[in-house]
Amino acid sequence: MQKSTPPRIDLYFDFSSPYSYLSVARVHRITQPLNITVRLLPIALGAIFQKLGWQSSPFLAQPRKLDYMWTDVARQARKYHLEFRQPTQFPVGSIQAARIANAYADASWHDSFCLQVLRAYFVHNQDIAQPEVISRILRGLDLNPEETMANASAEESKGLLRALTAQADALNVFGAPSLVVGQELFWGDDRLEDAVACCLSNTHERLTV
Amino acid sequence: MQKSTPPRIDLYFDFSSPYSYLSVARVHRITQPLNITVRLLPIALGAIFQKLGWQSSPFLAQPRKLDYMWTDVARQARKYHLEFRQPTQFPVGSIQAARIANAYADASWHDSFCLQVLRAYFVHNQDIAQPEVISRILRGLDLNPEETMANASAEESKGLLRALTAQADALNVFGAPSLVVGQELFWGDDRLEDAVACCLSNTHERLTV
Repeated sequence: MQKSTPPRIDLYFDFSSPYSYLSVARVHRITQPLNITVRLLPIALGAIFQKLGWQSSPFLAQPRKLDYMWTDVARQARKYHLEFRQPTQFPVGSIQAARIANAYADASWHDSFCLQVLRAYFVHNQDIAQPEVISRILRGLDLNPEETMANASAEESKGLLRALTAQADALNVFGAPSLVVGQELFWGDDRLEDAVACCLSNTHERLTV
Repeated sequence: MQKSTPPRIDLYFDFSSPYSYLSVARVHRITQPLNITVRLLPIALGAIFQKLGWQSSPFLAQPRKLDYMWTDVARQARKYHLEFRQPTQFPVGSIQAARIANAYADASWHDSFCLQVLRAYFVHNQDIAQPEVISRILRGLDLNPEETMANASAEESKGLLRALTAQADALNVFGAPSLVVGQELFWGDDRLEDAVACCLSNTHERLTV
């Protein structure tokens, strides 16, 4: 079977998701040496949860599961040598950051912005729903925060986030991170290596047909 | 810190859980060369779900998540070179098999029985709630099915399963498989290697203090 797309992982995530932080923080160290392209795609996962009839993250519905989640994320972060601190508030609003990322999907600073927002929340315990937190990150990237945030609040930018979330929904995403390789959906940071292996195996098929 | 227990993983599972099948089927090939002891501990996970206010497995509450689960389990089974076939009915009653396993926890055939019940369900699509399915497995182990099943239905055996389930509950188990190493709880087949690493690191501590 002939395939023409280069090896790529589409990483759908939500800025409020701790396992998304792990994936976004570690994906490039795995994929860069392998020449795999990664698209970081921030969505409004809450909209999908609502459509599925969930009030919020399934982790929040059950204190025992939520306690476990934080222990597990901390343990995973240690394993991957990533900084992590359990935030005081969970979840927080992620729409503002997601709109900016979607409005500037092709900007050279897009991936840095995504990682810095996740680090602000999951390392520095900052409320990323607050405009001043996002402003500081934008300023650090040598951008004009007011202009960038105004562009991201325009109807067109809101539409971009809605469209990307609808696309994730159409791919049957129900949690974050979700990794899409060709037709295959992988859910969770635990499947990152499998998504990479799938990507390599697709490439191998292309080279051998 | 002095620790006196030998390296051991307690693997709490439910016979109706597909990820439990993966763990029970592959745990020994990982732990045997490392001289780690594994205790296979079948519980009545439904009783814990009820206590937590869930009707059944969280996977069942959402068709999209359930569809994903079957795709994922099949993919994981392929990765681990394990046979797997999606059963027609899910979940099925697992109490009968769990009572037998608990009544004969120290029997030489205990671990074989556990794996064979899981394989009957997740490889051969047999309803393990049916006495004839369990009978056939017991007969294959050169046991007297009637006698074994009668012993397992005695009040004492029922109590053993209740006690083990209560023990899992006290350890904050909320899903299966759950792996316990010392004070650490790991949830899911995805954490099997981490539980093993934790076990080895505890052993290393013992040897160096």
